[in-house]
Amino acid sequence: MPDRARGRFITFEGGEGAGKSTQIRKLSASLEAAGIEVCLTREPGGSPGAEQIRELLVTGETGRWDAITELLLLYAARRDHVQRLIEPALARGCWVLCDRFADSTMAYQGYGHGLDLQKITDLHRIVLGELKPDLTLVLDLAPETGLARTRAGEEAARRGGEDRFERMELAFHERMREGFHAIASSEPDRVVLIDAGKPLEKVQDAVATAVRERLKVRL
Amino acid sequence: MPDRARGRFITFEGGEGAGKSTQIRKLSASLEAAGIEVCLTREPGGSPGAEQIRELLVTGETGRWDAITELLLLYAARRDHVQRLIEPALARGCWVLCDRFADSTMAYQGYGHGLDLQKITDLHRIVLGELKPDLTLVLDLAPETGLARTRAGEEAARRGGEDRFERMELAFHERMREGFHAIASSEPDRVVLIDAGKPLEKVQDAVATAVRERLKVRL
Ligand SMILES: Nc1ncnc2c1ncn2[C@@H]1O[C@H](COP(=O)(O)OP(=O)(O)O)[C@@H](O)[C@H]1O
Ligand SMILES: Nc1ncnc2c1ncn2[C@@H]1O[C@H](COP(=O)(O)OP(=O)(O)O)[C@@H](O)[C@H]1O
Ligand SMILES: [Mg+2]
Ligand SMILES: [Mg+2]
Repeated sequence: MPDRARGRFITFEGGEGAGKSTQIRKLSASLEAAGIEVCLTREPGGSPGAEQIRELLVTGETGRWDAITELLLLYAARRDHVQRLIEPALARGCWVLCDRFADSTMAYQGYGHGLDLQKITDLHRIVLGELKPDLTLVLDLAPETGLARTRAGEEAARRGGEDRFERMELAFHERMREGFHAIASSEPDRVVLIDAGKPLEKVQDAVATAVRERLKVRL
Repeated sequence: MPDRARGRFITFEGGEGAGKSTQIRKLSASLEAAGIEVCLTREPGGSPGAEQIRELLVTGETGRWDAITELLLLYAARRDHVQRLIEPALARGCWVLCDRFADSTMAYQGYGHGLDLQKITDLHRIVLGELKPDLTLVLDLAPETGLARTRAGEEAARRGGEDRFERMELAFHERMREGFHAIASSEPDRVVLIDAGKPLEKVQDAVATAVRERLKVRL
């Protein structure tokens, strides 16, 4: 009996309110309609252990952890998530769609907080070796627009106190956006930058096109 | 006004029941009697954030975290502890006595769990740079003896469910002990191996002698 083909690992990146949660649901529906088994997940969190670490990261004061402590907690959660959920799902043929992954760490802790980018790269290699997503969709949007969308939506209210990252200053979100641009430029084979300022359906088309072309799948 | 002299950083290492908690209290009393301000602490934990990370490490199933996730959580707690408690205390002239530190990670996760020792060394450099204790006292004892002492004592009962590490197999504790021997051999200027199988007072004398000779202090 031949092994079932390994699934694909697709990550959604971008600032708050860019449309990651929205687009990941849309893509999931399209893939399922095409007969592909899908696993939806998110970071930080995604596995029981990682969700417990997430609690430490998303609640409390902005200055609760210094940048390196935060980096270590994020990678502890990521390691657990990859080991316990992502790798097993890919191995049994599921396509894993993940809301934020390692590029968010590079953008937030690296470009946002000014942490040495090489330290983050070194840590990634210690923790995950050469693991990378097969495709990364960066939903690119001016931070003001994204934050306004988030505030207008109901999600913030639903999430209770989980707004530690959103409360950071706007300049921080600007640096983060530049980080995503830099990542997209440096890894064009893996990363596609998508204009998330367009109407929802246009963004959805751009996502579907990227997935079709890069991963050779009919959608 | 000249800065007050920086304090010294002394760590106690060794297996469960070797006498670390006992000896750290004794040394603390001797140093205070000599007019030195002392700060007692322990790992994992020691600062409010690190204690919250400790909760994730010391409770639950033995296989709750894989070795690398555990390593990252330990270093996240250590970073917080160093930044928020150890460095400020040393800077104001306190002598910091710490019950377990980085050598325990090398012994447990490296020698015990068989994690790549170079990975641990690389992670240490990313997180703490060149920070090392001024003096490390390894209380060396056969694991059976230490575990018997711990079970006989009341501490286990008092600590409730915090026994995830103790429940690991004896072979693991043996490998850990060999790890401490290897560390002591490779860094003789920093690390002193002390025979912890002797009566309490003899161990206490050996600790005092090491501190006197290595750190040039009258006790
Ligand atoms: N292209 C779009 N144009 C306008 N509003 C959008 C668009 N995409 C998403 N939204 C809305 O913006 C808010 C944030 O979207 P969401 O998908 O939760 O973003 P993210 O997960 O990236 O934070 C939601 O209320 C959503 O309906
Ligand atoms: N040298 C010694 N000889 C006999 N018993 C000891 C000695 N040192 C400590 N103990 C006892 O062994 C138990 C464990 O000691 P403790 O200091 O808590 O060890 P650790 O902190 O290294 O786990 C305690 O009951 C303590 O009184
Ligand atoms: Mg979202
Ligand atoms: Mg103890």
